[in-house]
Amino acid sequence: VSVVAVAADSDFPLANIPFGVVATSDGRERVATIVGDVVVDLAALHRAGLLPPALPDGVFDTRALNRFMALGPSATHAVRTRVAELLGADGDLDAVRAALLEREAVAPRLPFQVGDYVDFYSSLEHATNMGRILRPGTEPLPENWRHLPVGYHGRAGTVVVSGTPVTRPNGQRRGEGGAVDAGPSRRLDFELEVGFVIGPASTRGRRVKTVDAAQHVFGFVLVNDWSARDVQAFEYQPLGPFLGKSFATSISPWVVTLDALRPYFVAPPVQEPPVEPYLRTDEPWAIDLELEVDIAPRGKTATTVTRTNFASMYWTAPQQLAHLTVNGATVRTGDLCASGTVSGAAPGSRGSLMEATWGGTDPLPLADGTTRTFLEDGDEVVMRGWCGGGRGTPRVGFGDVRGAVVPAPPLTSAP
Amino acid sequence: VSVVAVAADSDFPLANIPFGVVATSDGRERVATIVGDVVVDLAALHRAGLLPPALPDGVFDTRALNRFMALGPSATHAVRTRVAELLGADGDLDAVRAALLEREAVAPRLPFQVGDYVDFYSSLEHATNMGRILRPGTEPLPENWRHLPVGYHGRAGTVVVSGTPVTRPNGQRRGEGGAVDAGPSRRLDFELEVGFVIGPASTRGRRVKTVDAAQHVFGFVLVNDWSARDVQAFEYQPLGPFLGKSFATSISPWVVTLDALRPYFVAPPVQEPPVEPYLRTDEPWAIDLELEVDIAPRGKTATTVTRTNFASMYWTAPQQLAHLTVNGATVRTGDLCASGTVSGAAPGSRGSLMEATWGGTDPLPLADGTTRTFLEDGDEVVMRGWCGGGRGTPRVGFGDVRGAVVPAPPLTSAP
Repeated sequence: VSVVAVAADSDFPLANIPFGVVATSDGRERVATIVGDVVVDLAALHRAGLLPPALPDGVFDTRALNRFMALGPSATHAVRTRVAELLGADGDLDAVRAALLEREAVAPRLPFQVGDYVDFYSSLEHATNMGRILRPGTEPLPENWRHLPVGYHGRAGTVVVSGTPVTRPNGQRRGEGGAVDAGPSRRLDFELEVGFVIGPASTRGRRVKTVDAAQHVFGFVLVNDWSARDVQAFEYQPLGPFLGKSFATSISPWVVTLDALRPYFVAPPVQEPPVEPYLRTDEPWAIDLELEVDIAPRGKTATTVTRTNFASMYWTAPQQLAHLTVNGATVRTGDLCASGTVSGAAPGSRGSLMEATWGGTDPLPLADGTTRTFLEDGDEVVMRGWCGGGRGTPRVGFGDVRGAVVPAPPLTSAP
Repeated sequence: VSVVAVAADSDFPLANIPFGVVATSDGRERVATIVGDVVVDLAALHRAGLLPPALPDGVFDTRALNRFMALGPSATHAVRTRVAELLGADGDLDAVRAALLEREAVAPRLPFQVGDYVDFYSSLEHATNMGRILRPGTEPLPENWRHLPVGYHGRAGTVVVSGTPVTRPNGQRRGEGGAVDAGPSRRLDFELEVGFVIGPASTRGRRVKTVDAAQHVFGFVLVNDWSARDVQAFEYQPLGPFLGKSFATSISPWVVTLDALRPYFVAPPVQEPPVEPYLRTDEPWAIDLELEVDIAPRGKTATTVTRTNFASMYWTAPQQLAHLTVNGATVRTGDLCASGTVSGAAPGSRGSLMEATWGGTDPLPLADGTTRTFLEDGDEVVMRGWCGGGRGTPRVGFGDVRGAVVPAPPLTSAP
């Protein structure tokens, strides 16, 4: 129960208390949380002396969560606990009223300054599907896949917040006749992913052990790792995805903390063969997190094209973090580590159009009577995610990450 | 001629005036340049009112070049011109004396905050060598190679300044018998590269035309893209290099400006087949830049193992920048774009041990009587680069980028 109204199906009850950055109409940005449909200005609460006294001056009066995230789990815990007191059943609405903002009156911003952006490839079903589609007749899984969490670095500077339009990329791709030329991607796709964000940095030359992951993982966001499949197909040998991915990666505006998600941790799939000792973990870091993807053509009804669950991922955050640092590389505050596309085994649970349409051969019907192999200009992709809410557990949600496709600019011949 | 002494073979005559960041023994950092062996504190010159008045307050009183680089070419030009006046033959040593620091009294820092780090693969000889070594009996060049500058994103958070020790990475690699396990890399290598640094950012959704490259390229540095060949070999399919590269990338401390390098621009190799219009350029952006690599075992004489020239690169900076942004991706101030390994055709001109020892099959003799296939603990790798200095043109150099290999920490079995 809260002093502000929270609907039963809200993603943001007092059990959640995620963190983000919002701007008011005057352009001023500050760190905030959200309860129901009310945004709470944490900079204002802090100035009013209502938050724990040990927090540094100005830590919320800023345009990014990085300073706060760097303080570590005890600061996160203290702030969430205090906000729950202030807004809980025994809270004092008058004391906090000046810090409350209507959700519609603020614009969400990119919640943190992204350090490095790493994209893993941790769904067994996704990796298997992609192998079958791209390399039919061969063993679908790369031989390294069960030994380590395969991943690569994406472009940090093009991570954008939900709601940012996504321009269809130009690039070099092979046409029907086999000739290569440059122009707008003809196979624009989404990838449904979940990412974790680094709070305290690690030390150069020292790996992060799986048992220490919770000291470094601040929280999770939904990720749409937009992909131009034709551009990617022509460019990716031998150095991996590059321009087929780098044009945009969208994330949800509210970072859901590790603490809020812990009640939904479940055991991950058994790994066979057993992994190297540095990747072993007995902690159940898979997350029972329901995921959905809608496609809404401009002005038309949305169609849910994917329903899946994050609990099926083969590799978990502590393993990804242990692997990322086993070579002595550091992680920094604000590093974003995405899971790779989340796909289930059933046809309706595939996290990309590449899989859902089996390489574009099996079009998906939409509610407006059209079909899709890949995204068309004007299509909006909306991803949602939530834990619990059914059988006695509170719903802890991510809100959504959305983005609409706008046409590619003409690629004029002038160099 | 300068009011401070500049040796004839100095990398830093008044024709250079590169930019970097140095710390004094009290830990204070500021932006500086170097003339001969004298470091010039630009924050001090600015405070004394000796630099162009339009520069923002505190632009040099900071730990990174980013704010200055973002001002663009006119600001760079104005500062270099003014420093050349102050320290030139008609300069006034008394006026600048308070801003001069002995080179030995300061420590170079990472000169800029790295945004994204992109590593290209732009040497025809290197790409051909790697294809022959890794995929013998097949066409060595990937089919996309002459169509676009192949590249990938590296780890920005582990770019370090020259002099930083490099810890041998642990990772998963295949042993002699074919089994995979985790432990210290047995095939640690260097890669000789040259990188450019972005000044003013580009606009989202808008490509940078090759003719506009000079508006965005602040300058160049030497890059050692350290590589663990065994880790890379096991991990890199299908998503490209990851932990085999991410443990460290070393750069030289002084960013040599585009303007200082222009006198050494030469025509790049002819591209056949012709490239897409967005990649075309008539400007001669290849750089006649001599490069050398030494290996110095701890306490022993150095051996020069590579001598080559950067002018041979197939793809140039304007093409790399045009490609990087053709999909609408932005570049940001501080983005680092490395060339890929610079290798010539002759055996003594190969920019990595992988090539110089042909995959470890042909050991290199060193001056101390030992040989190397790959780097051993204690080896220091020193790369140098310079333009001109021979036939009437002043020498404009980069100084060096160096790093010594320290042993891998034990990979204990505790997760």
